Amino acid sequence: MTDTDTQDDAYRQRMATKKRIVDERIANATEQRGVLILMKGNGKGKSSSAFGTMARSLGHGHRAAVIQFIKGRKATGEYLFFKDHPQVEFHVMGHGFTWETQDADKDRQAALEAWTLAERYLQDERVNFLLFDELSYMIKYGHLEAERVARAIAARPRHQNVIVTGRTMARELQDCADTISIINDERHAFRQGVKAQPGIEY
Amino acid sequence: MTDTDTQDDAYRQRMATKKRIVDERIANATEQRGVLILMKGNGKGKSSSAFGTMARSLGHGHRAAVIQFIKGRKATGEYLFFKDHPQVEFHVMGHGFTWETQDADKDRQAALEAWTLAERYLQDERVNFLLFDELSYMIKYGHLEAERVARAIAARPRHQNVIVTGRTMARELQDCADTISIINDERHAFRQGVKAQPGIEY
Repeated sequence: MTDTDTQDDAYRQRMATKKRIVDERIANATEQRGVLILMKGNGKGKSSSAFGTMARSLGHGHRAAVIQFIKGRKATGEYLFFKDHPQVEFHVMGHGFTWETQDADKDRQAALEAWTLAERYLQDERVNFLLFDELSYMIKYGHLEAERVARAIAARPRHQNVIVTGRTMARELQDCADTISIINDERHAFRQGVKAQPGIEY
Repeated sequence: MTDTDTQDDAYRQRMATKKRIVDERIANATEQRGVLILMKGNGKGKSSSAFGTMARSLGHGHRAAVIQFIKGRKATGEYLFFKDHPQVEFHVMGHGFTWETQDADKDRQAALEAWTLAERYLQDERVNFLLFDELSYMIKYGHLEAERVARAIAARPRHQNVIVTGRTMARELQDCADTISIINDERHAFRQGVKAQPGIEY
């Protein structure tokens, strides 16, 4: 047997083991229902991951709704890209960065309006996919009660998928989540002096 | 002064501090150029984050290309969603999961063909955004040389953004990355018996 044959054989064995593990896992996961996914942490990629998953869902013909709880200064790429899609309802709430307004009353009012809309979607059987972008800040700043949010999410239609993004997540949300990913920031271009750019940061 | 006034004042101060920090950071980041972003780790959200960022980039009118280095058994939602977009060139390479084929020669050949195509895009000034999905496995399994990959990425047009996804990343790629996010898996629906579903996992 040549060296290459031995290597190829090792490769075949490695892949066969991997296949066996993957196949076993697939066989064990049989429950069919919607999930609550939390994307948290301080790294880049939380909102973009949620929007990428929405694209995936739309690719399969699903209906989706987005509520962005924090409004930026400029129109974002995700808004420009998805706003006219026939299967998407896209809402940008709030009235600018909270750290721009610095007005607790106005911010609380905006958060409540946004969440009232969210609760409507959480009762709508026709919507397969819900994205609550930056929702966690509204809880962190005391504008929304974590318990009320968790209760509405837990009571949603069984097939509905929900993704919530934000740096930190209230315990009440973590308690009812199916998948929790934490994105940590190992390095960021911004800290090395690279300016935020359209298409990457917004 | 009432309690609410005091609370509102504290809120105003907290947000004012946040605004000062954000404004300072923005003022310090002045370099304008494309970046290399790595999405690694074992958590859910790496590929979807890259596709979400692509949507953001397309929203600003950019041109994009995707190369998926691993082909799944079924058409994915991201492929169905983006394949006909006029600003996207979408390539799915390979010939099934590597752990399905278990053929080192065929896998190596497929990886090389995909990377040759990638190198063409890395010399194309007209393409703003490149997504190399699951590229890191090709390096891990020895089908592609990390050095060759890093060299081509480092020599790309200055304004071009590149995102690479995969669980582990070769040192050579990390050395030339601007942003590295690591997604860790705190919880996954799959392990709790929930079946992989279209629109979420693929």
